[in-house]
Amino acid sequence: MVLERLKQVASHVTGQSPPPHPFDPLSEVEIEKAVAIIRKEHDGLFFNAITLWEPRKSEMMKWVADPDHTPRPHRIADVVAIGRGSKVYDGHVDLNEEKIVHWELTEGVQPLITMEDLQIVETIVRKDPKVIEQCGLIGIPPEDMHKVYCDPWTIGYDERFGSNIRLQQALMYFRPHVDDSQYSYPLDFCPIFNADTQEIIHIDVPKVRRPVNKAPPNNYHAAAIEAEGGFRTDIKPIEITQPEGVSFTMEGRIINWQNWRVHVGFNYREGIVLSNITFNDKGNVRPVFWRLSLAEMVVPYGNPEHPHHRKHAFDLGEYGGGYMTNSLSLGCDCKGAIYYMDAAFVNRAGAATTIKNAICIHEEDAGILFKHTDFRDDSVTVTRAHKLVISHIFTAANYEYCVYWIFHQDGTVQLEIKLTGILNTYAMNPGEDPQGWGTEVYPGVNAHNHQHLFCLRVDPNIDGPSNTVFEVDAARGPGEVGSAENKYGNAFYAKKKKLATQGSSMSDYNGATSRTWEMCNPNKINPYSHKPVSYKLVSREVPELLPKEGGLVWKRAGFARHAIHVTKYDDAQIHPAGRHVPQTSGVPSMGLPAWIAADPDASTDNTDVVLWHTFGITHFPSPEDFPVMPAEPMTLLLRPRNFFTRNPCLDVPPSYSSYPSGGKWDKTDRKSVSAKPKDCCSK
Amino acid sequence: MVLERLKQVASHVTGQSPPPHPFDPLSEVEIEKAVAIIRKEHDGLFFNAITLWEPRKSEMMKWVADPDHTPRPHRIADVVAIGRGSKVYDGHVDLNEEKIVHWELTEGVQPLITMEDLQIVETIVRKDPKVIEQCGLIGIPPEDMHKVYCDPWTIGYDERFGSNIRLQQALMYFRPHVDDSQYSYPLDFCPIFNADTQEIIHIDVPKVRRPVNKAPPNNYHAAAIEAEGGFRTDIKPIEITQPEGVSFTMEGRIINWQNWRVHVGFNYREGIVLSNITFNDKGNVRPVFWRLSLAEMVVPYGNPEHPHHRKHAFDLGEYGGGYMTNSLSLGCDCKGAIYYMDAAFVNRAGAATTIKNAICIHEEDAGILFKHTDFRDDSVTVTRAHKLVISHIFTAANYEYCVYWIFHQDGTVQLEIKLTGILNTYAMNPGEDPQGWGTEVYPGVNAHNHQHLFCLRVDPNIDGPSNTVFEVDAARGPGEVGSAENKYGNAFYAKKKKLATQGSSMSDYNGATSRTWEMCNPNKINPYSHKPVSYKLVSREVPELLPKEGGLVWKRAGFARHAIHVTKYDDAQIHPAGRHVPQTSGVPSMGLPAWIAADPDASTDNTDVVLWHTFGITHFPSPEDFPVMPAEPMTLLLRPRNFFTRNPCLDVPPSYSSYPSGGKWDKTDRKSVSAKPKDCCSK
Ligand SMILES: [Co+2]
Ligand SMILES: [Co+2]
Repeated sequence: MVLERLKQVASHVTGQSPPPHPFDPLSEVEIEKAVAIIRKEHDGLFFNAITLWEPRKSEMMKWVADPDHTPRPHRIADVVAIGRGSKVYDGHVDLNEEKIVHWELTEGVQPLITMEDLQIVETIVRKDPKVIEQCGLIGIPPEDMHKVYCDPWTIGYDERFGSNIRLQQALMYFRPHVDDSQYSYPLDFCPIFNADTQEIIHIDVPKVRRPVNKAPPNNYHAAAIEAEGGFRTDIKPIEITQPEGVSFTMEGRIINWQNWRVHVGFNYREGIVLSNITFNDKGNVRPVFWRLSLAEMVVPYGNPEHPHHRKHAFDLGEYGGGYMTNSLSLGCDCKGAIYYMDAAFVNRAGAATTIKNAICIHEEDAGILFKHTDFRDDSVTVTRAHKLVISHIFTAANYEYCVYWIFHQDGTVQLEIKLTGILNTYAMNPGEDPQGWGTEVYPGVNAHNHQHLFCLRVDPNIDGPSNTVFEVDAARGPGEVGSAENKYGNAFYAKKKKLATQGSSMSDYNGATSRTWEMCNPNKINPYSHKPVSYKLVSREVPELLPKEGGLVWKRAGFARHAIHVTKYDDAQIHPAGRHVPQTSGVPSMGLPAWIAADPDASTDNTDVVLWHTFGITHFPSPEDFPVMPAEPMTLLLRPRNFFTRNPCLDVPPSYSSYPSGGKWDKTDRKSVSAKPKDCCSK
Repeated sequence: MVLERLKQVASHVTGQSPPPHPFDPLSEVEIEKAVAIIRKEHDGLFFNAITLWEPRKSEMMKWVADPDHTPRPHRIADVVAIGRGSKVYDGHVDLNEEKIVHWELTEGVQPLITMEDLQIVETIVRKDPKVIEQCGLIGIPPEDMHKVYCDPWTIGYDERFGSNIRLQQALMYFRPHVDDSQYSYPLDFCPIFNADTQEIIHIDVPKVRRPVNKAPPNNYHAAAIEAEGGFRTDIKPIEITQPEGVSFTMEGRIINWQNWRVHVGFNYREGIVLSNITFNDKGNVRPVFWRLSLAEMVVPYGNPEHPHHRKHAFDLGEYGGGYMTNSLSLGCDCKGAIYYMDAAFVNRAGAATTIKNAICIHEEDAGILFKHTDFRDDSVTVTRAHKLVISHIFTAANYEYCVYWIFHQDGTVQLEIKLTGILNTYAMNPGEDPQGWGTEVYPGVNAHNHQHLFCLRVDPNIDGPSNTVFEVDAARGPGEVGSAENKYGNAFYAKKKKLATQGSSMSDYNGATSRTWEMCNPNKINPYSHKPVSYKLVSREVPELLPKEGGLVWKRAGFARHAIHVTKYDDAQIHPAGRHVPQTSGVPSMGLPAWIAADPDASTDNTDVVLWHTFGITHFPSPEDFPVMPAEPMTLLLRPRNFFTRNPCLDVPPSYSSYPSGGKWDKTDRKSVSAKPKDCCSK
C-alpha cells in the first residue's frame, strides 16, 4: 500500500487526480470516453447503460492483497446499446487500451427501460386516437387529454406479443387538477406501447367498464393540507448535531469507520454496491464480505383478472434501482452531518449525466450498545452505540424504496428497507366487490394485493473466500420426556444442514425453528468455541412467493422460489433474473435457476460461494396506506457468530462505568436534560 | 371532565394534591397506609408485594366515559404477605374505606422472590460448611470464601422438594478480584436454600467435577479496558437537543402526544402498564387498547443434564420486572429531553421504597415518515417522523432487558425489547465437549442454549370492547395455472380464520404465510374498505417453545405453547402463568391453560377479549456475546388496518413539499450540514 499511497500523494502534488480505485463507478469522463470509442466503430446507437465492468474477482483479490506488485485492473466499461430495428448490443470497452474488447448482437432480449424511455410514453398516449376514444367512453372528453397521465411499466411478458418487440404497458390515470394525485383516479384500460415505432399497438379494455372516479381529490402535498385546515403545530424540533464532525474518514470511495472499511460503489441497476468489506480486529484486518448488493426485486400483484397478471415489476432488472434513485436533500432525507456521493450515468444520446447526492452517508445514535448492573452492589457499565448508515432512495413509479445499509460497532451489518410512496391503484365501480384481490382504499380506488420481494446478493469472504453455508434450525434434543438422556424434555440444540452443492442449496424459511443461515469458513476455527468463524443471516420477513408454481411470475422470477440459493462464485453471475429482464418468458427461467441447472452438482462446500436471499413482505392494502403510505420498515441482519473471540466493541467509551471497588468513569452526555412537559392543568 | 378538572384546580389552589387517577400506581403514602391497616389486624408478617388492585373494568369503563357522574373507583391495595411458617396471605385493602376487604391464607403456593430475598442467600452460602467443603474440592480454599458469589434463582420446580418449602437455587461463581466478572468463573455445584430456615438444605453436585477456572479475567468495565490499552478515541459525539422542549404534555400520569393519549402505570410484576390508549382521529377520540403490558416471560435453558433443567426463569412471575427495574441516568440510558417517573414498592418490613427514574419517556427522530416523488416533474413531498418512547430496563441477575413501548405518528404501537447484559454460564473442564447444549464462549466457560420467551398481554379496545381476533395468512387463490379463474397463477388473498372460542383460539406462527393476527371490531366498518376496523399484530420473532410436550417447562409455561391464545375478558386474569409462579409443578398448568380448560366453549367472538402473544428468540451463545453482550433487538408492531379512512399523519409538517403547479413548502432542517470527513491522503 505504500507505493499506492505515494502515487496518490504524487498525483496530488502534480495536480493530476489519482487513478480511480478499480471498484469506483465510471466517472462522467470515463463514460463519455467509452461512448467515443464505440462511436468510432458503430453508429446509429442509443445507449441503454454504461457501467463499470467490475474487475474479475481473482485478478482483483490479487491486487487488493498487494497493490504495489500487482498490475492494476483495467478500467472496463460494460455497455448496453440499442441500434436500428431494436437490435441490442452488449459490449465491453477497455478504457486503458482505448478499444472495444467485446461486441455482440444479442438476439431476443430487451434491455431495461430507462427514465427517458418512460417519459416518452405519456406524450404519445395523450395523442393516440384509440386512447382518446377509450377516455371518452369512461367520461374524459378530448379537451381533457392533457389531464390524462400514465405510468409506463415494462410489459413483463405477454405471450400475444413475445419478446422481439420492445413494449411498455401504460397504467392510466387522470388528474382533475395538475396538483391532484392521479392515483385517486385510475383508468380502467391499458394501452400497449411499441418503443420502436413509438405507437400504441393495442389497448386492453375490460369487459365491465369503470367510468373515471367522481370522488373528490385525495391529496397530501403541503397546499392541500393547508387548505384542509393546516398542519399540526405541536411537534417540537429534535436537533441532531455533530459539533466535532463525523467519525469516519474517506479515501476516495473507501470509508473507514469504527473498525469497518468498505468501498462504496453504485451502478444503474443495483444502486449501492459495497465491496471488500473488512473489520479491523485489534490490528488484524479481516475480510468479511467481498460484495453486498440488492441484486433484484419482483413485485407480483395478486389479482387474477386480465391484464393485472402483467403487474409484477422487476424494479432493478427492468428499470434499475440506480437509474431511479433520488437526489437527496440535506435535512430532509437524512439529518446531522451528511456526506454525499453523486452517481454518473450515460443518457440515451451517449452523454454523461449525474444525479447529485445519490448516496447519503451519515451516523446516528443507536441507543444502548451494552449495559449490565450487578444487583449486589449496583456497579454498572452502560455504553451507547453509534451506527453508520449508507443509503439511497429510489422511486419506482408509484412506490419509494429507501435502502439503508447499516454498519454497527459490534460487527453486525444490517440492511433496512423502508417502503413508502403510493399504492398502485386500479379503477372500481361504486359497489363493486374487489373479491378479496384488493381493497377499496378510497371510494372508487382498488389497491391490489401484492408482494415486495427483494433478492440480496451476498458474496461472503469470511476470513477468506473459501466458505460454506449451513441452514440452522433450533431443534429439540433426542430422548422422550422421562428418558435418561432428556428426563425433563428441555434439551435443544442448533441443527445444521450443509448446503453442499448448487442443486441442493435451496432452503425455504421456517419461522417456528427460528431458521437462520450461517456463512462460515471451515478452515478457520474460533479458538474458544472450536466452531468455524461465521456470519449468520438473520432475516424474519421471508414470505413464500405466492404466485403458483408453473405460473408466469414463478417462471420469470426463479430467484424468488426459495429464500436461499447458494452458487459457486462466477464472475458472470450478478443478476439473479438474468442480465436483460424485460419480456423474458421464464422458459427457461433466466439467472439463478439456469445457473444451477447448468451444474447442479457443483460443490458449494469450502469454496468461493455466493448466497442469494429472497425476502420481503406481502402487502394487503388498507385505507391507512393512502393517499401516501407511512413508511413500512423491513430489516435483516448479518451477525458475527464465532467470528470474534469476544464482544468486539468493548473499547467503545462507556457513558458511565463503576466497579465494586469504588472507581468510576463518567462521560455522561451533559446535553441531555430533564424534560419539563406542560401539565394540562397548569396551562 | 369539567367537574374533574375543577376538582383538580381546586385541590391545586387549596394546596391539597389532586386525587390519584384510578390507574395510578399506589403512592408511598398509600402503600404505608395499606400496611398500617393490615397491621391493625395481623402481625408477624413480612411483605412480598403491595400494588394497585386495578379497578374492575366495567366500573372503570363507566368512570372513564363520564367521570363527573360516576363514582370514582376506590383505591384498593393488592397485598401478598408472608407470615410465620411461610404462610402466604393474599389480601385486598380498600384505602378509601380504610379496611381489609379480602384476606385469605393461600396454601401450597410460593410468591415471587424479591431482591431482598435474593440478597440474603449469598451471605448464608459463604458461611455454609457444606458449601465451603464443595469449594475446597474444586480449588477454592476456605480463606477465599469472600470471593464466592451466587445468583440465587427460584428453584423453578424440583419434585424432590415440592412446593411447600420456599426454596432458591444458588448458581455459584467466583471472583479472583472484587472487580472481576464472576461469570467467567462459574462453579460446578448448586446449593438449595430454604428461605424459612435460612439454611442450605441440599447441594447438587455433578458426577464429573470441574475445578474453578484458571483463565485470566475477562472484564469489560472502564478500568479493565483502560488497562488493556484504553478506549478508542475516534467516535465523535452526536448531540441530540430539543431547544423548544418536548412535544408531549402530562396530566398526572396521562401522556398526550401526537393524537395519542395513554395512562402510564407501573407495577412490581409487569413493569410498565399502558392503559386506556386512545387516538384522536380528527377530533374523534377513539379507543384502541384498554391495556398493554408484558405479562410474563420464561427463559428455558437447553442442557438436559441435571440440574440445568431447573434453569427456566419466569422473570416477571418469579422475580418481577418492576422490582428488578433500573434507576435510569440522564444521557446514559436515554438521550435528549427526558421525562422520568419513579416507582414505589413495599419492602419486606412494610416500608415504602422508591426506585427513582424507573420509567423514561422521551422522543426520537424516526427518519422518513413518508415520501413520494413524481417522476415526471420531480414534485416531491418528504416528511420526517418523530416517535415517543416509554421505556424501562430491568436486570434479571445476569441479563438486562430493555423494554421500549414506542408510539408512532401513523397510529402504530411498537414494542421493542433489547437484550443485553451477561450470559448465564456454567463450568467446563479443559477439552470438555459441550455436546451441542452450549458453547464455550471463553476458556472454561460454557454458555448454555436458551430461549427468551415473552408473553405480551393485549386487551384490545378497537373502537370499543367488543372485538374479535382473526388469524390471517397470505394464501394462494383457487384455480390451477391455466384455469379461467387463475390463468397465470398469480391470484392471492388474505385468508382469515376466526378465533371464535377460548378452546379453539390457539394459533401458532407461520413465517411462510406472513401470518399476522387481526383484532377487529366487527360492529364498526371502515366506510371505504367495508372491512371491520382493526389493529394487526405483526410479530416475526416467534419461535416454538423448544422444551418438549409433557416436560417440565412445557407444563409450567403453558402460555408459551402457542404464539396466540385468546380469552374472554376476566378481571382476575392478568398473569398467564398464574398469580404465584415459583415452585408450581405445572400439574395443572396455571394461568392460561387453566382458564381456557375451565370454559373452552366460551365465545371470544364480538365480545370483550384479551389476546396473549408469546414471542422471543432462541439464543445459541457465541464468544461475541461475552463478557457482556451487545444489545440484540427484537420488535413487534400493532398496526392500524382499516381503522382510519386515510393515512392519519398527513398533517405532520413536511420538511419539503413542492407541487407540479410550482408552489413549494420548505421547512428543511437547517442544522444539518454537509460532512467534511478527513481524507486519509490529506492527513
Ligand atoms: Co406495497
Ligand atoms: Co440470551
